[in-house]
Amino acid sequence: MTPELSADELQSQATPPAEHASARVGIVGAGQLARMGWQAAISLDLDLLCLGAADEAAAGAGAPLLEGNGRDPAALATLAGRCQVLTFEHELVDLPAIVELEANGVQIRPSATVLALAVDKLHQRRTLSGMDDVEVPSYAPVTDLSEVESFAADHGWPVVLKARSGGYDGRGVWICASRSTAGQALQEGQDAGLELYVEEAVDIALELAVLVARSPSGEVAVYPPVETCQVDGMCRWVVMPARVPENIAREVEELARNLAVHVGLEGLLAVELFLTRDDRLLVNELALRTHNTGHVHTEASTTSQFEQHLRAVLDLPLGVTAQIAAAAAMVNVVGPQDGSDPASRLQDALRVPGASVHLYGKRARPGRKLGHVTVCAARPETALTLALDAADRLEGND
Amino acid sequence: MTPELSADELQSQATPPAEHASARVGIVGAGQLARMGWQAAISLDLDLLCLGAADEAAAGAGAPLLEGNGRDPAALATLAGRCQVLTFEHELVDLPAIVELEANGVQIRPSATVLALAVDKLHQRRTLSGMDDVEVPSYAPVTDLSEVESFAADHGWPVVLKARSGGYDGRGVWICASRSTAGQALQEGQDAGLELYVEEAVDIALELAVLVARSPSGEVAVYPPVETCQVDGMCRWVVMPARVPENIAREVEELARNLAVHVGLEGLLAVELFLTRDDRLLVNELALRTHNTGHVHTEASTTSQFEQHLRAVLDLPLGVTAQIAAAAAMVNVVGPQDGSDPASRLQDALRVPGASVHLYGKRARPGRKLGHVTVCAARPETALTLALDAADRLEGND
Repeated sequence: MTPELSADELQSQATPPAEHASARVGIVGAGQLARMGWQAAISLDLDLLCLGAADEAAAGAGAPLLEGNGRDPAALATLAGRCQVLTFEHELVDLPAIVELEANGVQIRPSATVLALAVDKLHQRRTLSGMDDVEVPSYAPVTDLSEVESFAADHGWPVVLKARSGGYDGRGVWICASRSTAGQALQEGQDAGLELYVEEAVDIALELAVLVARSPSGEVAVYPPVETCQVDGMCRWVVMPARVPENIAREVEELARNLAVHVGLEGLLAVELFLTRDDRLLVNELALRTHNTGHVHTEASTTSQFEQHLRAVLDLPLGVTAQIAAAAAMVNVVGPQDGSDPASRLQDALRVPGASVHLYGKRARPGRKLGHVTVCAARPETALTLALDAADRLEGND
Repeated sequence: MTPELSADELQSQATPPAEHASARVGIVGAGQLARMGWQAAISLDLDLLCLGAADEAAAGAGAPLLEGNGRDPAALATLAGRCQVLTFEHELVDLPAIVELEANGVQIRPSATVLALAVDKLHQRRTLSGMDDVEVPSYAPVTDLSEVESFAADHGWPVVLKARSGGYDGRGVWICASRSTAGQALQEGQDAGLELYVEEAVDIALELAVLVARSPSGEVAVYPPVETCQVDGMCRWVVMPARVPENIAREVEELARNLAVHVGLEGLLAVELFLTRDDRLLVNELALRTHNTGHVHTEASTTSQFEQHLRAVLDLPLGVTAQIAAAAAMVNVVGPQDGSDPASRLQDALRVPGASVHLYGKRARPGRKLGHVTVCAARPETALTLALDAADRLEGND
């Protein structure tokens, strides 16, 4: 049951309005995205309150914290009562509670309807499929192996099995080369209580991502598209500008702009895309928040995604999205298998010329995202080589 | 009397050593420079502790705070006991206490000897005068009006009367056009208990500033020189690159590098210079810390001065100082005479394309530095026009 807001709590939201710079933004989540959001908030002297656990990344940066969980309706209501506008750093939230808060007059940006696209990926696929000028991989909801086989008969093996919700960084995604691996994946997913759908495995030339902001006033700002590389379902690196023909880059920007307007975005939207070997652009996934593929803008573009997010949800004028650096690369830093902490190798990484290192202050664990490195350079290849060098040093790779 | 450190406190400083990235840096001061230092510390997940008051700018950013004052020996000793290395955001400190802490084994960066150059400007002048290849304005210590008159007889009116210590942003500086104004200034200074010296009024073509970092290991990194404009003794704007011939820019960089090595700098040194109408470079003033004229590097250069400062005092490898943007300008935001808060006009300022706004979260007061704006652009003039526009909007100027 979602607790309702008291009259007092609703009253407290009335002043100042969300458009006012002194309004407090409630961020559902307190991980590295909220932490970097706090760094941006300091510059504009904006007021934040993060909902999460005290041992997450945001608290280590001194960000004001409300201890709690985005899946807990009571915690969400408390956050709403203390802030003028609510936004999100992840999708692992109790959506019905968000819907109810919105119905009670709480400013939710993006709106619950838009956020639902990120919470339920099958709903996202269906919505995108219904749009003109947007192409998505073929997909179908599945509940048993025969449905997977039937889909594979039409589209060929391998197929990709995905969880409708709760997945991130490769979790909730299974690439299935055969009936038997599909059976195992289906069983694993259903044992975990997940609803699943199946998708064609797209013949990918490269992966792209683009970030767009839209404010409640209707202002839209699209960042330059970036090229991304995924390893085991997790982003390994990003390069800007994407090394694709100019017409593809413009098409990606246009698609992002149209999507933002179509869904009535208030906040940030990250669009991940596949460019196929036959030059088709397929939308892979949407996120309604700051995104790993947008970290590169902090050093390389005029406005960081974190500042842009805050400007958008507060209905402040949006920042310029143009590149400052001719090229840049961002590489994630992931906890190595030996359990050691990349922070212990900071000194070595800082020897790489131009490496802007970000460490999230999270406890090291194998496979966990613990930081990232951005390098600006004259050419994408130079930036990527240097950023990979610094990330390798942090991860202790030879 | 300076309290001595207990054996326990000294022991606690032994591990980890100051070179280790997990060492805690104690910053004497908690104003906007410490606040922006905290933003940089978050990126590298470094540990800071600021010494200052709870209503200063750093605390509003969530920076860990030790409440106290840099003029209080007991507070300095407490800070030293909780940190592995001490550094400074201002010079308004009890220097004898710093000397004693250093003698007791506390890591002070810059050292007390170097810091003394910033604390006592007459000592600074004498040290600079003793260096080859460094030229300073003519000066003389004065205690009565006849000495000022005698100096003016040699160098002409106007002359500049300066306080040996405690001045900043135009405080402690009097430009005296005649015997009578000099008499008033002398009286005013001496009534405030200040020791004074007199300087020639230099025929300035333009003012320059340059920032240099040197680590205890001896690594040196010089930033591109910037052109500065002072109004009423306070920095109004900075433009990078400085619009001076290439050979002047190289000379300024060389001078900064030589100064850093000569004094045995550990940390940051900001050098303010006069370029005279007959193309002489005179050193106006040194600061041993992050500096207002270095704010432009946050957006426009590879490494911000705040990160560089932390890297230097922790003996981490220094960051690249090269410009990312072709040109940039920084304009200070000062509290307007009507007492209104520039933060209330943030929305209007953010309409200026490319304006990176920094608000310090300080209580608005007429004439008080409350923030700054940086703009990157292809040409210095464009950057300056836009940054002035945004700053004017924040200040509520027509």
